[in-house]
Amino acid sequence: MTLSGIWTPTLVPLNDRGQVNEPELRRFIDWLIEAGVQGLFPNGSTGEFIRFTSEERRWIAAITCDQAMGRVPVIVGCAEASIKETLNASEAYRAMGARAAAVIAPFYYPLSSSSIYEYFRQLGEASTIDVMLYNMPRFANPIDIETVQRLSSLQRIVGIKDSSGDLTFMMRMIQSISPLRHDFAFLTGWDSQVVAMLLAGATGGVNATSNVAPQLIRKLYDLTLKGNLEEAHRLQHVVTRLFDLMFQGHNFPDGFRAGVETRGFNFGSGRQPTGLPMPDPKVLAMKAEIAKILDDEAKYESRITRHDP
Amino acid sequence: MTLSGIWTPTLVPLNDRGQVNEPELRRFIDWLIEAGVQGLFPNGSTGEFIRFTSEERRWIAAITCDQAMGRVPVIVGCAEASIKETLNASEAYRAMGARAAAVIAPFYYPLSSSSIYEYFRQLGEASTIDVMLYNMPRFANPIDIETVQRLSSLQRIVGIKDSSGDLTFMMRMIQSISPLRHDFAFLTGWDSQVVAMLLAGATGGVNATSNVAPQLIRKLYDLTLKGNLEEAHRLQHVVTRLFDLMFQGHNFPDGFRAGVETRGFNFGSGRQPTGLPMPDPKVLAMKAEIAKILDDEAKYESRITRHDP
Amino acid sequence: MTLSGIWTPTLVPLNDRGQVNEPELRRFIDWLIEAGVQGLFPNGSTGEFIRFTSEERRWIAAITCDQAMGRVPVIVGCAEASIKETLNASEAYRAMGARAAAVIAPFYYPLSSSSIYEYFRQLGEASTIDVMLYNMPRFANPIDIETVQRLSSLQRIVGIKDSSGDLTFMMRMIQSISPLRHDFAFLTGWDSQVVAMLLAGATGGVNATSNVAPQLIRKLYDLTLKGNLEEAHRLQHVVTRLFDLMFQGHNFPDGFRAGVETRGFNFGSGRQPTGLPMPDPKVLAMKAEIAKILDDEAKYESRITRHDP
Amino acid sequence: MTLSGIWTPTLVPLNDRGQVNEPELRRFIDWLIEAGVQGLFPNGSTGEFIRFTSEERRWIAAITCDQAMGRVPVIVGCAEASIKETLNASEAYRAMGARAAAVIAPFYYPLSSSSIYEYFRQLGEASTIDVMLYNMPRFANPIDIETVQRLSSLQRIVGIKDSSGDLTFMMRMIQSISPLRHDFAFLTGWDSQVVAMLLAGATGGVNATSNVAPQLIRKLYDLTLKGNLEEAHRLQHVVTRLFDLMFQGHNFPDGFRAGVETRGFNFGSGRQPTGLPMPDPKVLAMKAEIAKILDDEAKYESRITRHDP
Repeated sequence: MTLSGIWTPTLVPLNDRGQVNEPELRRFIDWLIEAGVQGLFPNGSTGEFIRFTSEERRWIAAITCDQAMGRVPVIVGCAEASIKETLNASEAYRAMGARAAAVIAPFYYPLSSSSIYEYFRQLGEASTIDVMLYNMPRFANPIDIETVQRLSSLQRIVGIKDSSGDLTFMMRMIQSISPLRHDFAFLTGWDSQVVAMLLAGATGGVNATSNVAPQLIRKLYDLTLKGNLEEAHRLQHVVTRLFDLMFQGHNFPDGFRAGVETRGFNFGSGRQPTGLPMPDPKVLAMKAEIAKILDDEAKYESRITRHDP
Repeated sequence: MTLSGIWTPTLVPLNDRGQVNEPELRRFIDWLIEAGVQGLFPNGSTGEFIRFTSEERRWIAAITCDQAMGRVPVIVGCAEASIKETLNASEAYRAMGARAAAVIAPFYYPLSSSSIYEYFRQLGEASTIDVMLYNMPRFANPIDIETVQRLSSLQRIVGIKDSSGDLTFMMRMIQSISPLRHDFAFLTGWDSQVVAMLLAGATGGVNATSNVAPQLIRKLYDLTLKGNLEEAHRLQHVVTRLFDLMFQGHNFPDGFRAGVETRGFNFGSGRQPTGLPMPDPKVLAMKAEIAKILDDEAKYESRITRHDP
Repeated sequence: MTLSGIWTPTLVPLNDRGQVNEPELRRFIDWLIEAGVQGLFPNGSTGEFIRFTSEERRWIAAITCDQAMGRVPVIVGCAEASIKETLNASEAYRAMGARAAAVIAPFYYPLSSSSIYEYFRQLGEASTIDVMLYNMPRFANPIDIETVQRLSSLQRIVGIKDSSGDLTFMMRMIQSISPLRHDFAFLTGWDSQVVAMLLAGATGGVNATSNVAPQLIRKLYDLTLKGNLEEAHRLQHVVTRLFDLMFQGHNFPDGFRAGVETRGFNFGSGRQPTGLPMPDPKVLAMKAEIAKILDDEAKYESRITRHDP
Repeated sequence: MTLSGIWTPTLVPLNDRGQVNEPELRRFIDWLIEAGVQGLFPNGSTGEFIRFTSEERRWIAAITCDQAMGRVPVIVGCAEASIKETLNASEAYRAMGARAAAVIAPFYYPLSSSSIYEYFRQLGEASTIDVMLYNMPRFANPIDIETVQRLSSLQRIVGIKDSSGDLTFMMRMIQSISPLRHDFAFLTGWDSQVVAMLLAGATGGVNATSNVAPQLIRKLYDLTLKGNLEEAHRLQHVVTRLFDLMFQGHNFPDGFRAGVETRGFNFGSGRQPTGLPMPDPKVLAMKAEIAKILDDEAKYESRITRHDP
């Protein structure tokens, strides 16, 4: 079945010693699932995968799969040093019950398309778990459409998470692949265009903002699928405001780490120091604005609901 | 004493199973030292650090330090997931007898200058071994001059390897730091401008091309220091031709991996697949051209030497 | 009244001596209007404004306004050397009966936002004709949202043609300006996202592809406004295929110049030489593909229509 | 004879009505020539060519050629709409006594190398005056080395002004062209690397900073040619400080316009408004710093000279 719906690329709470805060992570996962997210996506860019060791990444994946308890599927991101290490990690994720492994395109060194294709081809042929391509051209080598199309002939490769933010790219990609592979999943990672991406044929989203406002994005998704575009666009603007607040002017994903604290969680300091005063007045102002937006939205909702017969 | 001279950012030979080929690496290190390089720099970008696990990187460092046997100093590159892991690794390198640890600026996520400063500050204050900043703006976050200047006040931070290839950047940096910290090292990683960088005040180079032509670059260095600029510039053009051949049109550092094989070493396939036929006709042509350039240069040398009284 | 609908950024036919081919331009304008375009936009990027002299630009504008004969409005692009020259040109366009002057942001030299704001502010305050901002960040300085918002307080500035191709940018811009200025026009210049831009609140499009397929884009516009999104998206894919064929792999707007010849017009060679053989086999193949796409679409249309009662 | 030496890309003083201030321009030209610049280069990027009309550009060229009175040669920049207009303009410059016409690569539209080659080829074959290529990749299409090499076979094309600031590019270019065309001129437009460029084989410089400190740059040039590298590098640092002050943090070339006023000239406001308060405190501080640098340098000089026997 095609992967679809709203997935949360989960942030990782840290304790005072900078280690994974397991109890808080479990509490956070419960909250997300109860709020309606349709899948969990640990160890993505939002989850700061490359700032954890291989062992820590497995630990995060294990907690997530365990706590999800089958209520929602889990796709685990991979950021290992080589194909062999990636296969080892994804085999471990399979054993934990993950639905798929999402593999970022190689980063740091710029690579040719043929090299990127070959990397994923070897993974796709050897993996014992479904593989999702992870296109994040801001941070890693881009995966071009021809490469995705070629890779879509491998049954183990079941979809792409695309964080390019380029609607035309998504549309061209869907046009070139869907006719050949009906069950291929297209998940958008660009929170400010979820409605447009879904209308253009994307099957879902993996959206950092859903760490902070899971209900809102889930609702936006449902409204779009029902064709209630006016209300969907209204919510899209709310989501974009939240996204912009947390994305712009911060080292990614620090703004989202701060944002999730407005929902009653204690995420601690990130691993990459900011060099800014703590608490940072700019962050405090952002948190206040997020709280206000969410409060306004809640009031709007209750007003609408009250008037419904 | 200020770090200076020509350092080789050593490539790593792999065996048929894709593992570090220890005997060949030891043979290669001997060859480099005998050819005149003044230091070894394992686990840099040329050494494909991020394609090895933490354990493999320590193994590569251990072989290198052991084989160098104090004949030349060793600076070991770091590419760990966090400050804590970097400190652990560099402590291990200290125990192996390394002269310093070179730490790449954080990559993947774009970061503010204040965050990059704080990262290196924490390292510089806690490290038990000298630290070299590693600026590689093509692949990682750039380290700006103000940040280098601020960091140069920490005694453990002893220099920078700069691979920006921007002569003006190097000159501005030297101008702003040397008056405050006389022993700070400035090593250029841009092989096509070694002469100009040395004339502008750089104290040495960490040059990928020295994996293939160590004598040539060492000679270029000596000539520049002696003020024989005409001959130095002639050699610079030879080095640039070699550098361009191996840098352009290949995924870095694959061209250099191929190049070193022209010197009688067996480096095996790299870890990142190329998706190209093996042997690749383009690579074969490149190897032939490298061999010809080195042969022409050897003939030129022997002709000159014969005419010397 | 807010500027809306589909506008054609008209290409300019040249004769054998490289001069404006007036009879062909008049014939082309008639064809476009009969095909349903709702406005003409001479002297834009597609119209190669900067490759004509000031005098030629006025001549092109005069022919266009004269031939339109009030059937559709005309917005004339400006690319003069200075504010004073731009005001002179736009006054001339006013006298010709143009609806507005579209002014590209200054190009060549990168400029600060405050400088761009001040440029348009002086124009907006002194102009005797309505002014449309022209945002083309691929070729000229970008106009940021805050600048557009500040400028929207000037009554003479009536809208923006945005060719960024960034749906999020368009949505943020509409969100920040529409509440303050209800009649502000938002025309998208990104042909592959017209449906999404209209759904997000854009009031129309200025689309290079409408030089070649005016009926198609007009129909896409009407379908979107009527809410027939399935058929609109189908047409969007056809338009994107045409756009990609003419945009990618050619010097812009040469692909569009060639494309329009498939509709029975003789546009001659462009002013910027290509250095390619004439006829270029790649261009011939592109023309054949455009003809086939348009033919397929015509057959599809007639099949649908036949089945309609 | 190969074009060489230090050329000034002259700024244009404007009067209160925004028109060319002829008396001040004549006074400025006299001052530059007396200060030792070896050529004048009106209508370049520093001279804001695209902000003047064709007629104004001719007027600026005419004043410059007339006032130079043969004391130094004049190369006039071209920024016309088409090849035909460029030929007309360069013929006019020939009649004024200009030594050559410098033609910027086409800008605004990105172009293929073959198109850029063909553009210059047609100019080179039809021109009645020597042509200098003008490579300014920050603002216009880059001219690649293969294109320069192919064009160097045309006798009318006598050199290149390269403002890439990339020393390796300059070295590769000289290596590939000098053996085929001994008299080809290589003038660098990157003020912070004049010494290194000259050592690498450049024949001279066209340097914006020479509008403000003509004697300094001329002296730097003479010292480099004499092999006094220590003093040349000392002056290079002074020039770089001046260049950075005027280049960074301002819309180019506004910093240089302000800088020249410290030498006793009245250049008026530029044509592109800044949107900043007048006088801008940042500009006043910059002017004070320039004056101090020049004053310190004068004191240093007189101290040195006094001690000379």
